[in-house]
Amino acid sequence: MMNNLTHLDENGAARMVDVSAKDTTEREASAEAVILLSPEAFDAVASDEAPKGDVLAAARIAGIMAAKKTSDLIPLCHALPLSKAEIAFEPLADKNAIKITATVKTVARTGVEMEALTAASIAALTIYDMTKAIDKGAVIEGVRLLAKSGGKSGAFTAPP
Amino acid sequence: MMNNLTHLDENGAARMVDVSAKDTTEREASAEAVILLSPEAFDAVASDEAPKGDVLAAARIAGIMAAKKTSDLIPLCHALPLSKAEIAFEPLADKNAIKITATVKTVARTGVEMEALTAASIAALTIYDMTKAIDKGAVIEGVRLLAKSGGKSGAFTAPP
Amino acid sequence: MMNNLTHLDENGAARMVDVSAKDTTEREASAEAVILLSPEAFDAVASDEAPKGDVLAAARIAGIMAAKKTSDLIPLCHALPLSKAEIAFEPLADKNAIKITATVKTVARTGVEMEALTAASIAALTIYDMTKAIDKGAVIEGVRLLAKSGGKSGAFTAPP
Amino acid sequence: MMNNLTHLDENGAARMVDVSAKDTTEREASAEAVILLSPEAFDAVASDEAPKGDVLAAARIAGIMAAKKTSDLIPLCHALPLSKAEIAFEPLADKNAIKITATVKTVARTGVEMEALTAASIAALTIYDMTKAIDKGAVIEGVRLLAKSGGKSGAFTAPP
Amino acid sequence: MMNNLTHLDENGAARMVDVSAKDTTEREASAEAVILLSPEAFDAVASDEAPKGDVLAAARIAGIMAAKKTSDLIPLCHALPLSKAEIAFEPLADKNAIKITATVKTVARTGVEMEALTAASIAALTIYDMTKAIDKGAVIEGVRLLAKSGGKSGAFTAPP
Amino acid sequence: MMNNLTHLDENGAARMVDVSAKDTTEREASAEAVILLSPEAFDAVASDEAPKGDVLAAARIAGIMAAKKTSDLIPLCHALPLSKAEIAFEPLADKNAIKITATVKTVARTGVEMEALTAASIAALTIYDMTKAIDKGAVIEGVRLLAKSGGKSGAFTAPP
Repeated sequence: MMNNLTHLDENGAARMVDVSAKDTTEREASAEAVILLSPEAFDAVASDEAPKGDVLAAARIAGIMAAKKTSDLIPLCHALPLSKAEIAFEPLADKNAIKITATVKTVARTGVEMEALTAASIAALTIYDMTKAIDKGAVIEGVRLLAKSGGKSGAFTAPP
Repeated sequence: MMNNLTHLDENGAARMVDVSAKDTTEREASAEAVILLSPEAFDAVASDEAPKGDVLAAARIAGIMAAKKTSDLIPLCHALPLSKAEIAFEPLADKNAIKITATVKTVARTGVEMEALTAASIAALTIYDMTKAIDKGAVIEGVRLLAKSGGKSGAFTAPP
Repeated sequence: MMNNLTHLDENGAARMVDVSAKDTTEREASAEAVILLSPEAFDAVASDEAPKGDVLAAARIAGIMAAKKTSDLIPLCHALPLSKAEIAFEPLADKNAIKITATVKTVARTGVEMEALTAASIAALTIYDMTKAIDKGAVIEGVRLLAKSGGKSGAFTAPP
Repeated sequence: MMNNLTHLDENGAARMVDVSAKDTTEREASAEAVILLSPEAFDAVASDEAPKGDVLAAARIAGIMAAKKTSDLIPLCHALPLSKAEIAFEPLADKNAIKITATVKTVARTGVEMEALTAASIAALTIYDMTKAIDKGAVIEGVRLLAKSGGKSGAFTAPP
Repeated sequence: MMNNLTHLDENGAARMVDVSAKDTTEREASAEAVILLSPEAFDAVASDEAPKGDVLAAARIAGIMAAKKTSDLIPLCHALPLSKAEIAFEPLADKNAIKITATVKTVARTGVEMEALTAASIAALTIYDMTKAIDKGAVIEGVRLLAKSGGKSGAFTAPP
Repeated sequence: MMNNLTHLDENGAARMVDVSAKDTTEREASAEAVILLSPEAFDAVASDEAPKGDVLAAARIAGIMAAKKTSDLIPLCHALPLSKAEIAFEPLADKNAIKITATVKTVARTGVEMEALTAASIAALTIYDMTKAIDKGAVIEGVRLLAKSGGKSGAFTAPP
C-alpha cells in the first residue's frame, strides 16, 4: 500500500517526486467547487444588477492568481509554467448556489490537477469573503477534480 | 442590499474596507473541511501504521502556512498578525473521511474567519495531493466557518 | 547630505530604518498614475459597453493586492498592516487616458506612501497588460504621491 | 473590438490566455522609466561620492527581483522562466532625473514585456523610497516598452 | 521533555503557539554567519576595488528582504511587523572569510530570533551564489543567535 | 578577476546572467548542513519516541518548500522548474547533532546548487525554531555544496 503514496519514500518521509524522466506534454485539468449561499447573499452576488459584477470578477482574478501560486501552497507540488487558466461561474438559482469551474493547462512533465483544485477553492473562498457581511453560514461543497488529460497515467473523468 | 456587501463601494467597485477605527481586540475563528477518500486512500493516510504519519504532518504544516498567506490569496482580506494557528485531524472511519479543523487567533482590528477557512481548505487539498496517486476521485465537502468570537459584530456559531 | 538619506547608514550601506520609537498612529497616503492609451485601446477599456468592465476590475484587484505586497517589493520598506486600500479610475477621454488613484491607510509606526505608489503603478501595468494585444505603445506618466497625513513628519500635498 | 482584448473571453470575463500551442522561442523585451528628483535628492543618489552607490544597487536588485515576481503581480500574466534580467541607470543631470532601463529575456511560449515594465517600475519606486526623506515630490514619467523581439507577433520598437 | 517543545502540542503535532496573551514590547535579536571563501573569491568580494561592492550590496538587500519573509519560510514562526533590519559585513582576511551580522527589531508579542538567523543565512547564501563561478567549495559556518532582548523569557547572549 | 564574478557586469553592477543559449539538460545538486543541539534538544528531536516525529517532518516540508522559493530569496538566481526535491536527516548522536542533506533536480538551462543549499539551510533553521524553547544556543555548521552534476561546467564533488 505504502508505495502507492508516491509523495512518501519507503520510510514514509515526504518528498517532491522525481519527474525528470517524464515527457513534457500538454496536460489539462478542470475542477469544480460549489458555494451554497443564503438567499440574500446569492441575490447580492448573482442577480443581474450591474454593480454586483465585481464580486465574481474579484473571485475570478483570485482563482487565476491562486492557480499560479499552487506550488507555494501545496508542499510537494511541482511548480509548473501554466499555459492557460480560466474560471467560469454558473449560478444555481434553485439552491442559491454558485458553481465554480476552473480549467488549467500546461506543457510540462506533470499534471495540473492541484492547480485547478486550488483555483476553484480560492475563488469559492473569495465569494465567501465578499458575502460574509451578509451571511457567515455559507458552505463550500463538492470541491473535486472533474477531468484531467495528458501524461502517461492517462485521462480521468469524474463520475457525474 | 448592495450596501451590505461591505467589500463593494456604492458603485459596486471592490475595495479593502477601512477598519482603522475598529478596536484592536482578541479575535478567534475556527473552520472545518471534510475530505472523502476511497477506502484504499483512507487506509494509507489514517491507519495507525507509523510511516503514514507524514501525510497528515505535511497537511498540518501546509494549513498553518496557508493561514499566514491568506491576505495574499483573498484579494480584499486584511493582513493580520496571527497569534495562534492550529490544525486538528479526525479520521471518520465509517465514511473513509478525514475531518480537518483549523483554529486561528489574532489581536487585531478585524477577524480571522478567512484565515481559518483557508487553512482548512489548503490542508484538505494537501491530503488530496498526497493521495491522488491512489485515487483522483476524493471530494472535499463542508468547508465552513464553525465559530468566531471577538469584535463588534459578535460571536457566530455554525448550526450543528 | 548623506545623513538625509535615512535608508543608508553613515557608511552608505542600505538598512531598514529603526522605527521602534515612533508612535503608532493613523496614517493615510494617496498616489496617482496616468496611462495614455491608443484610441482603440481606450475605447476597449473605458467605453460603457458592459463586457469591458473586467479590465478595470482586474486592475483594481491587482492594485489592492500589490499594496499588500509592497514590503516584499521595495527592499527597505517596513511591512505594515493596511487598514484600507482603494483604487479609483477616471477616464480622461480627451487624451485617451485613464487616471488611477490609490488610497491606503494604516495604524502603524510609519507611513504608507510606498503602498499607495505601488498600488497605482501595478494597477496601471495591469491595464497595459490587458490592452497590449491592441497597442504596445501605451505609456504610464505621472506616477506620484498626491498626499499623505499622519505621523511626526506631518502632512504632504502634491502641487496641483 | 472586444476580441482584440485577448485577456477577456467573449463575455468580457478575464482569463489567462491559452498559449499551449505557441512555439517555445527566445524572446526579449526592454522597458524604461524616468524618475524626476529634486536637485538635492538627485545629488544624493547620482553624484559620484562613493557611499551613495547603495541607492542604485538596491534599486537594481529590487528591479531584478520584481521581474521574477511579475506573474504574481499582474493577474493574467503567465509565469515564465527568465533567462536574463538586467537593469541599467543613466543619470540625466540636466533634469535631475535618472533613466532606468530594464532588459529581460526568456525562452518560452510568450513574451516578457510585462517583466521588463515591472522591473523598471519597481526600480524607480525603490529610488523614490530611498530618497523620500529628502523629497516626497519625485515623479516617475515615461514608463514604457522600448522594444520586444521573438514570437509570432514580431518585433516592436517604441518611437524615439 | 515533550512539553518543552512549545511548537508541538501534547500529541506531538506541530502548531503555531498562542501568543495572544503575551505583552507587546520592544524586542531585538542579532545573529551571525561566517562564509569561508577561497582566496580568489575572497579577493573578488572583499578587496577594496570599487566594482566589487555590488556583491555585498546584493547580499545585504537579500538578507533584509529575507528577514521580512521569515514567517513564510519557517512554518511555525509568527509574522511580525519588523521595525528595523540591518546587515553588517566584516571581512576576516586571515581566513578569507566574511562575517555577517544581522540585527532585527520589532514591537510585538514574540521575538525576532528567527528573523535575524534567516537574514544572516540568506545573506551568506547570496555571497555563495555570487562567487560560485569562481569557487563552489565555499562553506557557511557558525550560523547562530548572538543575542536577544525583550520579552518575558529575558535576554540571551551567546558565549563568545 | 572581475570577469570571473559572472553575476556582475564589467562595471560591477549586479545582473541575472543570460543563460538563454545554454542547453536544457538534467541537472542535480545536493547540499548539507549540520545543526549542533544541546543534549536535551537533541533528545527531544531525534530520539525514537513517537511524538517527536513532527519536528523533522516540519523541517523536511520547510526545506522542500524553500527549495521552490529559492529564486525569490537569492536575488540573481534564475527561477527553475524543480523536478525533484528531497531532504534526509541523519542524527549524529555522538555530538547531539542532526545532519541535513538536500537533493534537488531540474531539467533546465542552469543548475540547482542554490536550491539545494537553501533547502538545507531552511530545514536547519526550522529545527532551530522548534527547539529554541529548550536551547537558544544551537549552531548551524558546514552549510556546503556536496555535489552537482549536469551542465557544461561539469560535475563538482566536495572534498570529504
